[in-house]
Amino acid sequence: MYRLYDYLPSGNGYKVRLVLKYLSLPYELTEIDIKNGATRKPAFLAINPNGRIPVLEVPGKGHLAESHAIISYLAEGTELVPDESFERARMWQWMCFEQYNLEPNIGMVRFWVGSLGKTRAELGEKLVEKKKHGYAALDVLEEGLRDRDFLAGGRYSLADIAVYAYTHVAHEGGFDLAPYPNIRAWCERVCNQPRWAPITER
Amino acid sequence: MYRLYDYLPSGNGYKVRLVLKYLSLPYELTEIDIKNGATRKPAFLAINPNGRIPVLEVPGKGHLAESHAIISYLAEGTELVPDESFERARMWQWMCFEQYNLEPNIGMVRFWVGSLGKTRAELGEKLVEKKKHGYAALDVLEEGLRDRDFLAGGRYSLADIAVYAYTHVAHEGGFDLAPYPNIRAWCERVCNQPRWAPITER
Repeated sequence: MYRLYDYLPSGNGYKVRLVLKYLSLPYELTEIDIKNGATRKPAFLAINPNGRIPVLEVPGKGHLAESHAIISYLAEGTELVPDESFERARMWQWMCFEQYNLEPNIGMVRFWVGSLGKTRAELGEKLVEKKKHGYAALDVLEEGLRDRDFLAGGRYSLADIAVYAYTHVAHEGGFDLAPYPNIRAWCERVCNQPRWAPITER
Repeated sequence: MYRLYDYLPSGNGYKVRLVLKYLSLPYELTEIDIKNGATRKPAFLAINPNGRIPVLEVPGKGHLAESHAIISYLAEGTELVPDESFERARMWQWMCFEQYNLEPNIGMVRFWVGSLGKTRAELGEKLVEKKKHGYAALDVLEEGLRDRDFLAGGRYSLADIAVYAYTHVAHEGGFDLAPYPNIRAWCERVCNQPRWAPITER
């Protein structure tokens, strides 16, 4: 059986859990407290030298890190990956966008504010910059969802799962989604998918 | 024919050019001066609302952004992508690592210092932090290349191309690769591949 090393509030871990659940793949969960530095200890570094969750243990194969590598491995050949090659590339385009433009801004601010309890005064200029880039990414996503129910291939795919993970909890870092009607409607569509579960559910 | 919108010193663009050349795929190049704000002008935003190069124009399909989405589209089914699914996921693991840990640190410092001519004094604490994270990523890469000629599947793949792009020019941002013998030997192996070309070659 798969074993997932994860931290339940993590959006990156949530992507993997949503895919495992959607595909009804059984797994065991090992919780890692990233706030306690557990990902930087030798036992964890032995399974991911980059010191980050999530990590998927694949029996007979080894340990796989990076949420998008893990979900593409799990979902290969399923309905979560578009059949057509250009639409599959579009799925990856949105997943790369998420990792470069959304997660480091929206996800990071949520971690600083929501998990570590940092204040605006403590964060200073760093927060201002992350907010600016985070809203710019939300603008791009809002435009990408204009006249489109899902991000790639005309149906629910890994792109939606990957982008949704941090976007739907953006408010936990102080981002306001009110000016983004397309994003809000799409979040509703995602949470109406089969076997959807909230972010901190095991 | 493919058209690539690109900025020649860009490592992200270079990944695409290396794949196009390796696979002997003909393409036309449209150079975009990112230092002049050309990627933020309406004409460019119409092809990539995220305002970044590279963008690949695929006849009959549309415009594709994000270097890793582009190279996986171009190389699908070729020897640059491992046949075995876990090794293919390992390839993606390294590509995601590159985008999250290497490019935002090593690539960004190179852009600030090498392209924009910023000084250490101007960059201050931002530079210190990027250097710290950049060296941490190089440590992970050095370990990943221990007893291994290439990053995934036992042969040259998209992972090597993606990770090499900014790593081999890390010194242009002031990173010292001398303490990284595995990385230096691997860079040599990459530049000995068929149809390799230097970063700024069209």
